[in-house]
Parts: sequence; structure tokens; C-alpha cells
Amino acid sequence: MSLSDITRERLESVATATLAGVLHKHGIRSSFLSGLSPLTSGRRMVGVARTLRYLPMREDLIPTYATRLNAQRETVEALQPGEVLVISARNVPDAGTIGDIYAMRALRLGATGIVTDGATRDTAALAGLDIPVYHRAAHGSTYRRHHMPVDSQLPIDCAGVTVIPGDVIVGDDEGVVCVPAAMVDGIAAEAADQELREEWGYERVEAGESTDGTFPLTDDRRAEFEAWRDARSST
Amino acid sequence: MSLSDITRERLESVATATLAGVLHKHGIRSSFLSGLSPLTSGRRMVGVARTLRYLPMREDLIPTYATRLNAQRETVEALQPGEVLVISARNVPDAGTIGDIYAMRALRLGATGIVTDGATRDTAALAGLDIPVYHRAAHGSTYRRHHMPVDSQLPIDCAGVTVIPGDVIVGDDEGVVCVPAAMVDGIAAEAADQELREEWGYERVEAGESTDGTFPLTDDRRAEFEAWRDARSST
Amino acid sequence: MSLSDITRERLESVATATLAGVLHKHGIRSSFLSGLSPLTSGRRMVGVARTLRYLPMREDLIPTYATRLNAQRETVEALQPGEVLVISARNVPDAGTIGDIYAMRALRLGATGIVTDGATRDTAALAGLDIPVYHRAAHGSTYRRHHMPVDSQLPIDCAGVTVIPGDVIVGDDEGVVCVPAAMVDGIAAEAADQELREEWGYERVEAGESTDGTFPLTDDRRAEFEAWRDARSST
Amino acid sequence: MSLSDITRERLESVATATLAGVLHKHGIRSSFLSGLSPLTSGRRMVGVARTLRYLPMREDLIPTYATRLNAQRETVEALQPGEVLVISARNVPDAGTIGDIYAMRALRLGATGIVTDGATRDTAALAGLDIPVYHRAAHGSTYRRHHMPVDSQLPIDCAGVTVIPGDVIVGDDEGVVCVPAAMVDGIAAEAADQELREEWGYERVEAGESTDGTFPLTDDRRAEFEAWRDARSST
Amino acid sequence: MSLSDITRERLESVATATLAGVLHKHGIRSSFLSGLSPLTSGRRMVGVARTLRYLPMREDLIPTYATRLNAQRETVEALQPGEVLVISARNVPDAGTIGDIYAMRALRLGATGIVTDGATRDTAALAGLDIPVYHRAAHGSTYRRHHMPVDSQLPIDCAGVTVIPGDVIVGDDEGVVCVPAAMVDGIAAEAADQELREEWGYERVEAGESTDGTFPLTDDRRAEFEAWRDARSST
Amino acid sequence: MSLSDITRERLESVATATLAGVLHKHGIRSSFLSGLSPLTSGRRMVGVARTLRYLPMREDLIPTYATRLNAQRETVEALQPGEVLVISARNVPDAGTIGDIYAMRALRLGATGIVTDGATRDTAALAGLDIPVYHRAAHGSTYRRHHMPVDSQLPIDCAGVTVIPGDVIVGDDEGVVCVPAAMVDGIAAEAADQELREEWGYERVEAGESTDGTFPLTDDRRAEFEAWRDARSST
Repeated sequence: MSLSDITRERLESVATATLAGVLHKHGIRSSFLSGLSPLTSGRRMVGVARTLRYLPMREDLIPTYATRLNAQRETVEALQPGEVLVISARNVPDAGTIGDIYAMRALRLGATGIVTDGATRDTAALAGLDIPVYHRAAHGSTYRRHHMPVDSQLPIDCAGVTVIPGDVIVGDDEGVVCVPAAMVDGIAAEAADQELREEWGYERVEAGESTDGTFPLTDDRRAEFEAWRDARSST
Repeated sequence: MSLSDITRERLESVATATLAGVLHKHGIRSSFLSGLSPLTSGRRMVGVARTLRYLPMREDLIPTYATRLNAQRETVEALQPGEVLVISARNVPDAGTIGDIYAMRALRLGATGIVTDGATRDTAALAGLDIPVYHRAAHGSTYRRHHMPVDSQLPIDCAGVTVIPGDVIVGDDEGVVCVPAAMVDGIAAEAADQELREEWGYERVEAGESTDGTFPLTDDRRAEFEAWRDARSST
Repeated sequence: MSLSDITRERLESVATATLAGVLHKHGIRSSFLSGLSPLTSGRRMVGVARTLRYLPMREDLIPTYATRLNAQRETVEALQPGEVLVISARNVPDAGTIGDIYAMRALRLGATGIVTDGATRDTAALAGLDIPVYHRAAHGSTYRRHHMPVDSQLPIDCAGVTVIPGDVIVGDDEGVVCVPAAMVDGIAAEAADQELREEWGYERVEAGESTDGTFPLTDDRRAEFEAWRDARSST
Repeated sequence: MSLSDITRERLESVATATLAGVLHKHGIRSSFLSGLSPLTSGRRMVGVARTLRYLPMREDLIPTYATRLNAQRETVEALQPGEVLVISARNVPDAGTIGDIYAMRALRLGATGIVTDGATRDTAALAGLDIPVYHRAAHGSTYRRHHMPVDSQLPIDCAGVTVIPGDVIVGDDEGVVCVPAAMVDGIAAEAADQELREEWGYERVEAGESTDGTFPLTDDRRAEFEAWRDARSST
Repeated sequence: MSLSDITRERLESVATATLAGVLHKHGIRSSFLSGLSPLTSGRRMVGVARTLRYLPMREDLIPTYATRLNAQRETVEALQPGEVLVISARNVPDAGTIGDIYAMRALRLGATGIVTDGATRDTAALAGLDIPVYHRAAHGSTYRRHHMPVDSQLPIDCAGVTVIPGDVIVGDDEGVVCVPAAMVDGIAAEAADQELREEWGYERVEAGESTDGTFPLTDDRRAEFEAWRDARSST
Repeated sequence: MSLSDITRERLESVATATLAGVLHKHGIRSSFLSGLSPLTSGRRMVGVARTLRYLPMREDLIPTYATRLNAQRETVEALQPGEVLVISARNVPDAGTIGDIYAMRALRLGATGIVTDGATRDTAALAGLDIPVYHRAAHGSTYRRHHMPVDSQLPIDCAGVTVIPGDVIVGDDEGVVCVPAAMVDGIAAEAADQELREEWGYERVEAGESTDGTFPLTDDRRAEFEAWRDARSST
């Protein structure tokens, strides 16, 4: 999966809320990851999902799943430039799932983000790295308190959303949205259009107009919007 | 419902915690909205409740409740100067209930605050507006993921507190408290008194005294407190 | 319980995540308090636990447990320099457990921190005090909404961790960890060692190396790490 | 709202699961009330919704909402033959919402069922009455512990489903489903057809066939199914 | 604490719901244990509380708290005839707190009931014993999965209610209520009266009357009720 | 994976609680599935796990995952005699995961049980089948309300326990335990021994002895126990 320049550019400017709204119009109700927040505000994240799955710790399986070369290390070391590491940890808030050294490694490998539906560890250090990180909570324990890393690049549930390896993951201060790989160009284009309409509506309302007619745009105001849009793009 | 100047002035200075404490003394156990936080710290909110109720989405009812002129738009457009929009969304954290355009409209109409027990959408934009907003969470989906706006100006449950249209809604960094309309003058006056007593107690403790006698104020220290209070108000 | 200088020094520099990790290696799975966060970031807390236990309000017991000289006041007034007040409030998020006057008193008595698994009240004021405070939530109600202070210096559950009076409580931006009194010297020393290894590993990964071999440190890299450590300590 | 004989007959025989499945095919995702169970197994319930709404107790409003002639009594006394009382109590499990005397009154007035998303009180007595009752839990407290009855015959949320007065409420051992009034004839007919197909599929699978082709029925088996159905209805 | 004959007799016949209702009238809002159910229906339980407290497992404390002579064994072996064992296990549903051998011992020692706000283990065997048992859930693990027994005969929180050793614990199919020791005679008497009034009201409603006037009994019907009551007691 | 006769015989007689207890002694803390209950009491289940994984519904993936030949049908149709179908549905209580036709198919194929950590549909019908079924809840919706069946025979989380295909699944009235395939012979043998010791202890306590010495068996009583055991097995 590689993103075209125009799609990447659009994804870097549209809001995750707009993407989730457009996906909903296409019938996809669960695209926005619930309950996660960025460690550091003011950043944007765009990348392609590489998935990692944790299961409940079962001590007899430590030799299989919690060894030196386990799925956590395997997945992090396999990260490609432009990828986002997406960790499924069953929404458990009270066990770490990733810490600062793995995050630094992800950064060095060119990853563009880290998303976990569990907790981060070394959270203050993570927040200072030059890579966006989204989490449910901070917790000082290691993953061994509740988890084993089990496998990589399978479809996963992350924070209530099915994420398929290769899906496009976008984040801003609101949170994280998963855009299906096969739909990403169209959704990005629609979202860019939608943002224009909302920007116009916002301006109209800011200027004192009613929301009725301006948001959502009604047909009788379309010409006015289009004139605004054309004037704007010609500058 | 319009607030007298002295009551408004008092509500703009006393803490929500003090108001909740005074209401509890009057037998009202649930006045402070649970689980909500301000988008932006350092602001105060005082206003009169205008209520909006959401119910679970039922797709057959979209023509009735989720049309262009639905209860969300109706309620926002009806906002009067000095009102706070209070949204009952069943404490659902994973669906938006209001976004930046409606919030701008509320601001333009003179509303003094927005409170939802669900999620906000476009949260970063909302946080930048010149109107205090309180929410449970940020979520990028539209309300259609889980809700329909159903009606306006009915009694509602917002974050565990019954809010009647016309009640007085006060917010600070701690959160939001609902003051019954019929009691607001008395409660505001008592709260202002209580804050004076707590300020005196705080000063005494800061100066090294025990909490016993100073907080709460005991009878044997009352004269001392009153002298402090009188000296203070004469300056 | 008094901490040796070297142990205190170590506890003031190592991360709570490192302490929790080392305790887990010693077989202690639950040492990090779950779901709590600091009111103010950038602070560290080290101190000896003094415990306070709240039980559900039972109005017939107010004359026993919720009087002027109740367990809350008794415990706060008994605080010794270097102690951390640890409140067990059944993880209830919607009732205050401590406010600014008691916190100021704790500060004046030399306490080095306050931890509650319930809510704080007057939270903005608390955040401005020169004492670290950890809580689950902010809530404007007094403890009487749900709690009675019942006793002091008993073993308690705080945020899912058993805390014994005299245990050592350490906090940073990640949260709070409880170090058993009898183990504190050894754990602090191990944690300091562990941080050195992680620091080296972090540097190696920052420089572009794989995590494999560097984190955790493998035997074949031990000499390299030790040379780094010795060079570092000689400066 | 009155049900035609054929619709009533169908609703008395089809499973709530079948109704929920057919409603989902028509795009309605939330029709089955979540988390409720019948007090007594082996009963069926069919009736028209009369709604009652509870809000959080606010002690200053007792003179308005918790008096002798409150909304609970008003709603129960207004019950018509063939109606089901549907109580919205915010899914609160730890406060009663109805007890045996009101349930007996409902029975005497010809009501055909009682549904609450809160707790029942006097639960063992309720279970012995000749009227189906569905609840979330048993709890010995009166509603005053957490609730006030506020109004009647408004749209409500009951156990996650929007119920409009006049909707058709159907219950069996699985639980309760809400069928929109405007759709009830069509849904009942479709559900009866669907049950026939499932009965045939079940017989085929019971006889040792694969589920593939038999459930759901595929086109190549339709003739076989129809022959079975016709043979069956001719007996 | 020993119960008088008349009080015991009353407690053995009145419903827990009636006791909770009467306690609420005396201002006690939390007396009914939330979320617990009997293992076996049709039994009644009356006894005096002996309390046992569990805290989160901390493996370094096993030599102190989870030894052969731990607080669980100590408390069970100390049970006196007429006592109910009340276990505080932080409402944790996924770890056993008591099994069949300890329950048999309680029975042999004359205990009249067992109440835990955690899980039972060997639940089917427990259900067959001749002693009422109330629990939150069944779970096959031992207490060591999450708990340590810590102490005995302290005030505890059991299922949201403060229980003091010596309080009177009453159970029926609805669940369990805690009656404060100092109030038990009065509460039992009031509850017996209340049940008479409700029985009369129930009869009137069963006979076709409105609930208004009959439940709760209004003054204009008091003479009628009293005549019924006197006639009844003279038979 | 096929079970030896002696292991199967032991697993058919020992309690799931005993198995969970023995596994805990071997260091495995999470083997008992939390929050599940049998549809029908009085049954035992022993079989080898065949796993099925559900993920959150994503409507764009219906052509991949929710087709006629989806993972649900594939897994059910692949069931071998002696297998237990184990469904991972993220502990979601409000969507069906399996209904009566698939359950009948499982029965016909020789499966010995069905376990889901979500809801069952057609629950009353399922309860009547001659195959043990364990679930979290009953719900009338189809899986499409929240789930897609995604894959088969992968390691899964079921009700908080990692289940590997081939693990041995045992159920009784208490619930379900997962015994690791590689350990099953030893664990079964130990559990059978443990039950003998508990049976002896139970008899001693039933006869009026203290629990101390009898449960758990202490060394000084071992000879007595062994004599009892030998006498018993010789009959």
C-alpha cells in the first residue's frame, strides 16, 4: 500500500471527524477509534497500518509468545517508512503495551505513528518523541502484567474498529480514524470537498447567519458556496 | 428566568465545588455533573439551561427526528443570550453530539456555554471558540452513529443530574453544577458566605494552624473570622 | 520507616515504570496504581504511606464516623514530614475525597504527596499547591455524597494495589507505584541499574541499532554496556 | 394503536430473535432491548407501549415529581387493555422502579406486560403474577434511592432502544423487542415467513445436512422448501 | 448482639424490600446490597454480621496474609451460632472468595448465612448446602487469583453497603439488606406494620381498586385498613 | 489432539474449580473463563478447542468476511467429533454470535460443546439441545449488529483466557476452564488427586472437625487421609 501524493496531502489536512463522517455516509459506522487520545496535541498522523495483536497472558505460553524474538519485537523491527504501528490490546487500561525504546525504534525505522488501545509505558518520554502516539491510558507495568504479544499483520480490533494491515490510519487532536485501503482515494477527495463546504458554512455562521441552509449546505445556497470556493482557489 | 446582578456576580466568582456543597446542605445530593471536563481551562460559565434530548438512533424514525429541521437545529437556533445549551446524550462516549459550526452559532446567539454528557466533535476547533464547552470525550463520528435529536426544553438527565429548562448552570475548571432556578439567589448568597469562611480557613491553615477549628469554622473562632471578614470588606 | 539517603536519591530519579517492572520481576504483579493521574505534570513524589479508609455513607453512622474529629481530620493532622497521604475511596469517581484546605495542611505538616483513588475537590486550587496530588477524577461534591472516613493506618486497597502503612509511595507523570517497605532498598538499587541499561539501550536504538540485543540487554552486549556505564560514571 | 388479529397471532408465535433479525434487514439496528431478562420463563408478551420516564432524584423537585399523583401512578392507572408498561430508568441496576402492587394494578387493568430497564422490587412476588415482567436486576430499594418518575407517553430510551408510545412490544424467554407501530404488519408477516424457512433449515440440519444451502435458504433449495411448506400447511 | 424473639420473628417474615424501604424513611439510603443473588431460591436468612476483608493480592505479603492461619480461616472458625459471614471482596467477579468446605464449616458452627460481594467457588455444591449463600458470580479460581484475606471484624464495604460487625443481615430471594444493630428492633416493628399495610393495599388492588388511596394508604382509608387488620389478627 | 481414556475420564469427573486451582499452582493465573454461564445446569462438557474469531463489523468488508461461506460456517462445518466450538466475540453482550441451527449442526457433527464470550440467539431453543452451551448473555440480534466472523483456528481471547486450538475445554455448572493441551494429562491426574483430598476434608468438616488440618490437608493428617483413600478405592 502506498499513498498517492494527492491523497496523502488531503489526509494531512482534513480532520479525522470529517473522514469519519464521510465514511459513515458510505455506510461504515465504526471507523473512529473510541477512547484514545494523543500524547501530544497539535500533531497530525498519516500512515499505513502494521498490526500487532496481544492476548491475555498465559504463563505456560511464555516460551512460545513472550520470548526475546516475540511478536512485539518482530512487528516493530519490520516497520517500513510511512507505516503506523497499531496494537490490539483488548482495551485493557492497566498494563503497558509499548515503551520509549520501541517507540524510538519505530521512529528510526520511519514509522509515522503508534496507536495502542491499551496503555503506554514511559509515557512522558514517549510524549517527547517526534512521532505521534495515541493511547487509552498511562500505566507503569510491562505488558506481562496482562498480555502476551501473539502475532503480526492479522486483522485486529483496535479500540472498537477492525483494522486490516494496509488500511490508512489518520490522527489529529480528536483521535484516530481508520480509512479502508481500497477506499482511501475517494474518501480523501470527498473529505476535502466536505471540509470546504464546512469552512464556508462556518464562515457564514460566524458572520451571523443561521445554520439552516449553511450547514449542511442546501441546494439554494450551492451557487453561493461555489462562487466562494472558486474565488478562494483562484487566489 | 433572568438572573439578578448580584446573583450573577456571585455565581461568577464562587467555585462549583462550593455550590455543590451548599446544595448538598439543602438536601440535594446530585447537582454536580459527573465525568465531564472543560475543553479549555481557566474559564467560567454562568447561564440558564436550554435543554436538548437525544435518544438511541432508530433508522425508521429518521424522517421524524433526524431531518434538516431537527431538534438539534431547533434548539441551537432558539438559544437566547445568557443561555447554556445542555445536551442529554445518555453518557455515550463514542458518538459526537455537537461540532464547531453549531457551537459558533450558539456563540453568535449569545449563549454562554455548551454542556454535553456525550462526546464533542471537531473538539480542537471547539476549544478555540470563545464559549466554554464541557464534554465527556472527543469523538469524530456524527451523532448519527448512536443518536437522534428528539426534543427540546424538557427535563433531562445530563451526566447524572436532572436539569430543568431554566435552571442555572455554572461551570469552572472542576466541572459543571446545576442550581435549581427557584433556589438560585439563596444558594448564591450562601455560597459566597461559605467561600469567605473557607478563604479564612485556608489562610489560617496556610499560616500553620490546625484544620480543627478553622475548617469548618467552629463557634469559638467565629468572632475572629468575622473581624477578618469585616476588615477585608472595608478595604 | 525512614528512607536511607541513597534509596531516597534513587527513588527520586528512577521512573515509576521501572520500579513497577522490577517489582514484577520479584513476583509482585500489582504495584502500580491504576487509573490515577497527577494534577500537575513534571513533579516527582517520594514518601512513606499514611493510609485513610473511606466506606460507603451510612447516615446512621454519621455520629460515629463523620463528626468534627473524624478519620479524615485525624489522619491529615497526624501526617509526619516525608509522608504521603493515601486515601482508599473504592475507586468512586463521583464524590470528592479531599480539598484544598486539607491539602494545604498536609503540605504545612511536611507531607510529600497526596494520593486518592476517588475524586479531588477544589481541583484547580489543589493543582497550584506545592505538593504532588494524584486522583481519579475531579468532582465538586463533598465526600458525604458517597463516603464516610472510617479509619487510619490500616492496610488499604488504593486503585487496585494493597498499600500497607509504611510502604514507600513514588510518583511521576506516569502515575504512582507502591514499593513494599521491606524491599525498598533492593528495589531502588535494582531500578537504578535497570534504568542505566535502558538508557544505554535507548542510546543505541536512537543511534539506529535494532532493539534486539540492546533492549533488553543480551549477554553478548554486556561488556559494551559496562564500558559505557563505567565511562559515564567516571565523568 | 390496535393490532389486527393476524398480526397479533403472528407476534404471539414468532421468536423475538426473528423479529430483531427482520428489523435489521429493514435497516433498524437497535430493536432488541439489551440486558433485560424475564422474571418467569416460558411466557410470551405482546402489547402496545405505554411509556414512563424516570430521571435522577433531585430532592427539591419532590413536590413536583414524587408526590401522591406522580407520573408512576398516573401511567399505571392509565393503562389500557393490551398495553405494555415500558419504564425508562437509565439502566440503573441498584434502585427499584416498580413493585408488586403496581404490577397487580397493571394486570387488573388489562396490561399484557411490564418492561423496565432498571430493577424490580418485590421481585419474587412479581414473578408469581400472571403478567410477564422483564427487568435488569432485582433491588430492594424504592425508586427514591435514585429516581423520580417524571412524565408519561413521551419517546424514551429503554435498555438502549428508542420506544415510541404505540410501538408494539414483544417478549419471550430471550428478551424484548420493540416493533415500530407503522411497520408491525409487514414485519410480523415477514417474520412468520422467516420462521418457516428456519424451521425447514433446522429440520434439514437435524437430519444431517450441511448448513450451506439450508440456512440461510439458497435459491437452488427454494423449490424443496416450498414443497415442504405447502405440504405442511395443507395438513 | 443477640436478637430478641419478636424481632427475629419479624425479620424472618418481612421482605428485604420492606426493610430497605423503612430504612430509607429513616434516612439510610444504602442498606440493600447491590448486585448479589441467592444461590438457591426460596430461603430466608437472618443473622448477625461477622466480617472478613480481602485486599488485592500482593505476593510479598503472602507470608503475612495468605498463610495456613489466615484471616479467612480465622473468621470462619470464629463463627458463632446465629452469625452470617460477610465477605468484602471489592465486588470483583472473577475470583473465588469461598468454597464448599468453608461453607460446610460455617454451617456446622451454626452460622445462618454467607454473603460475599465477590464470586463463590464450587458453586453448585454450595447451592446444595443447608445454608443460604449470596454472591455476585460463580468463578472457579481460588481467591489467590486476585485477593488476600486480611482482617476480621472490621467495618467493611460489602456490595456498596457499609457493614459493621454486629449489624443484622437479612436475606430473601430479592437479595440482602443490612439493618444497623442499634435500630433493629424499631425497624423490624415498622417493617411488620408496613407489610400489613401493603398486604391490605395489595388485596384492595387485586379486588379491582385503584392504587390511589390504597398504596400508600391514605388517611381516609385508614379506618378501613385498621378494621381489616384487627379482623385479621383476631382470627 | 486426542485425549487418552484415563484423562478424559478424569476430566469428566473433576470440577472446573479444581482444574483452575491446579493450573494456578502451576503458575497459570487465567484459565477459567470469566462471566460465562451454562444455558442448562447439570451438564458436563469435555472437548478439544476449535476457535472462531469475530471482529467489529466494518460494512466495507462484508464481501470478504460476512458472505455465505464465511468463517462462522467454515468453522462450524469443520467441527470434528469431540471438539468444542470456542467463539471470541470481544465479550460483547448485545449481539448474537450463534443460534440454534448452527448449534444443531455442531451437535450432528459430534461436537461436545459450544462456548461464546458474546451472546447466544434463540437461547431457549439452544438450551433444549443435547449439547452444552456457555454464553455471556442472550440477545435477539444477529451477529451483524456488531460483529463479522473473520477467521478460524487462530489463538483467541475468550472471556479473558487465551485459547489455542487443540486446548482442552472443560465445563460444568460453575463455568468453563481451558486446560493447555501439553499439560492436560498431568493436570487431570493432579486434579483427581486434589478432589480426593478435598472430599476427605469435606467429610471431616461435615463430621464436625475444624478446617485447620483438613483443608488443605496438613502433613500430620496425611496418613489418615491415605488410609481413607485406600479403603475407599478398595471397595
